[in-house]
Amino acid sequence: MKKKYLLAPGPTPVPSSALLAMATPIVHHRAPEFAPVLKEVQEGLKYLFQTKNDVIMLASSGTGGMEGSVANLLSKGDKALVVVGGKFGERWRDICNAYGVETINIDVTWGEAVDGSIVKKHLDENPDIKAVLLQASETCTGVMHPVKEIADYVKERENTVLIVDAITGLGVFNLPMDDWGLDVVVTGSQKALMLPPGLAFVALSDKAIKMMETSDLPKYYFNFKKELKAIAKNSTAYTPAVSLIVGLKDILSMLREEGLENVFARHEKLANATREAVKALGLTLLAPNAPSNALTAVNAPEGTDAGSIVKLYREKYGITVAGGQDHLKGKIFRLAHLGYSDTFDVVIAISALEMILAELGVDFEKGAGINKAMELLSK
Amino acid sequence: MKKKYLLAPGPTPVPSSALLAMATPIVHHRAPEFAPVLKEVQEGLKYLFQTKNDVIMLASSGTGGMEGSVANLLSKGDKALVVVGGKFGERWRDICNAYGVETINIDVTWGEAVDGSIVKKHLDENPDIKAVLLQASETCTGVMHPVKEIADYVKERENTVLIVDAITGLGVFNLPMDDWGLDVVVTGSQKALMLPPGLAFVALSDKAIKMMETSDLPKYYFNFKKELKAIAKNSTAYTPAVSLIVGLKDILSMLREEGLENVFARHEKLANATREAVKALGLTLLAPNAPSNALTAVNAPEGTDAGSIVKLYREKYGITVAGGQDHLKGKIFRLAHLGYSDTFDVVIAISALEMILAELGVDFEKGAGINKAMELLSK
Repeated sequence: MKKKYLLAPGPTPVPSSALLAMATPIVHHRAPEFAPVLKEVQEGLKYLFQTKNDVIMLASSGTGGMEGSVANLLSKGDKALVVVGGKFGERWRDICNAYGVETINIDVTWGEAVDGSIVKKHLDENPDIKAVLLQASETCTGVMHPVKEIADYVKERENTVLIVDAITGLGVFNLPMDDWGLDVVVTGSQKALMLPPGLAFVALSDKAIKMMETSDLPKYYFNFKKELKAIAKNSTAYTPAVSLIVGLKDILSMLREEGLENVFARHEKLANATREAVKALGLTLLAPNAPSNALTAVNAPEGTDAGSIVKLYREKYGITVAGGQDHLKGKIFRLAHLGYSDTFDVVIAISALEMILAELGVDFEKGAGINKAMELLSK
Repeated sequence: MKKKYLLAPGPTPVPSSALLAMATPIVHHRAPEFAPVLKEVQEGLKYLFQTKNDVIMLASSGTGGMEGSVANLLSKGDKALVVVGGKFGERWRDICNAYGVETINIDVTWGEAVDGSIVKKHLDENPDIKAVLLQASETCTGVMHPVKEIADYVKERENTVLIVDAITGLGVFNLPMDDWGLDVVVTGSQKALMLPPGLAFVALSDKAIKMMETSDLPKYYFNFKKELKAIAKNSTAYTPAVSLIVGLKDILSMLREEGLENVFARHEKLANATREAVKALGLTLLAPNAPSNALTAVNAPEGTDAGSIVKLYREKYGITVAGGQDHLKGKIFRLAHLGYSDTFDVVIAISALEMILAELGVDFEKGAGINKAMELLSK
């Protein structure tokens, strides 16, 4: 018997209450008893996104929400500025290119945040840039990009919008959409929202809604205008993922009860404890300068394959953590601490890491990591 | 206390075993323990679709699978022949038009099946038609279109494919994909597959796969080439709807155990009993000539609003049935008998109908419907 722990940056564990809510008999999506669910969920999403505008729910993974953001706002031949500092930055670029949107790519070393002044420089040099696309949190590196700074540059430009992939950002750290003037914020169900994958969410500023009027890219399933019209009637354009939405109602009420500030503080505490514990073990972080509180990417100790660390986590301890992607494969491992995650998830991650490092013959001060974690977690 | 019954044509009730399977802790989609689930599900889907080719799973509702079929096979300016005999036929037309695919629309009276010879005539007159798109079962009318006949016309044309929306057809009646030479078959999770909404499925013939090579329409999330490559590695292109796939494994094993022939026979029996019972009550069917075994659309008795029948079903008896859509609103009500449906679902539908008709003061022979249903169900 080996207990299983899921400490990867999505899907994340789902609280039992949500699992059980989703296991209740299916309700018809047009039946009157589903209406209050949709209504409550809509209010909860506005609270989560910190926006007065409606939040679109799509039956798809987060990528569908990303594609929809491009297809609904931009037009063929438009110019977009893309921050490419990891796999998900590449995804923004690739989606734009698939639709014939020309991209100016800011290639950022994986593990570093984009320099906001470079974004500004491109915007100044290219007044015809219609959209800036980036990640709030780049899941493949654990980097947090300076969204607020960039929003400040974008919001003074009348014909440019800021499109933020907040798939591992929203509900982890503060991203007040209306307050910062973010135009499009996308997230998914299987990260801080603690649900199974299968729902994407998109919120739009008035500026973004206005830009949709001129978009000529083809869209059908991801049709934001149709979805906004449906929300106004407390409905959805197509058959929604009913069971996930029933689970979402439970999750959003958990988040409201905890309070967004406390949610952010919890993630901050868990992330900080993880980072400091890892450093106390003599390991280094991939993103020391701009770490996201969603996950911590750790460089494998010199001479060690990160893959063997991930494998020991899984096979010896029943813990799913993530390895590196593309050129970071074998070089890093990623410990997530987002969503349904608290004190003992960090204790588990760090105590297992110490046992694994010992088994791999890595030289480190025994107990230094777990003690540091406990010290910071108990504060 | 009122027990709830879901007798609408999707979402359909989910068996407890699948609900409970989906309520187990989330597995990471790239973890080794998910691999056998994907593998078993792929085998089960091939059995269900009656095809040797791989079946693509998408985290979306069925409409996403429809859009993907257009976006992945066709090119801008292509000509498509669309059977438009209801809301879902209109959807094929609208998706094509959204992508700049020119459509020749065969407008069929709602409630009637398309005349296959008209399809043939159009194909003969327009050798440049790249695709014929239709529903196997038009959910808004309960009509079954002559898929096999049309497949015979299409398959002899080298550069034309047949794209079938089988969302309420697959797993209800026989649609042997390879045997009949269907090129694209689309379905969704919330119909005969007895799951919550959130998964779409698409199977492709070799001819369809070849046509994808020349398609120039934009696509990213619904990218069939990427999905087929991923399936070859027992994976998915994007984060799949893990919990629904875990439920799907359970459902597919139920379907295999029952055997497709028995599944079809069960639907035939339930559908026939429903139709004959309704007629025994003196009511008429919207689609008497080509009824689908998925659902039965019934014309409201003269002088009665179908809406009041649907409302009594719901409010007095806790039963969700469907009304009519668009110009059929108030004119018909739809009783579904697909998916997790057996003898007593029909008994419930018909006995409630008798009580409702009596309450509405409709003149009919008391007991004639329920007796006819019982007679046919007990055979």
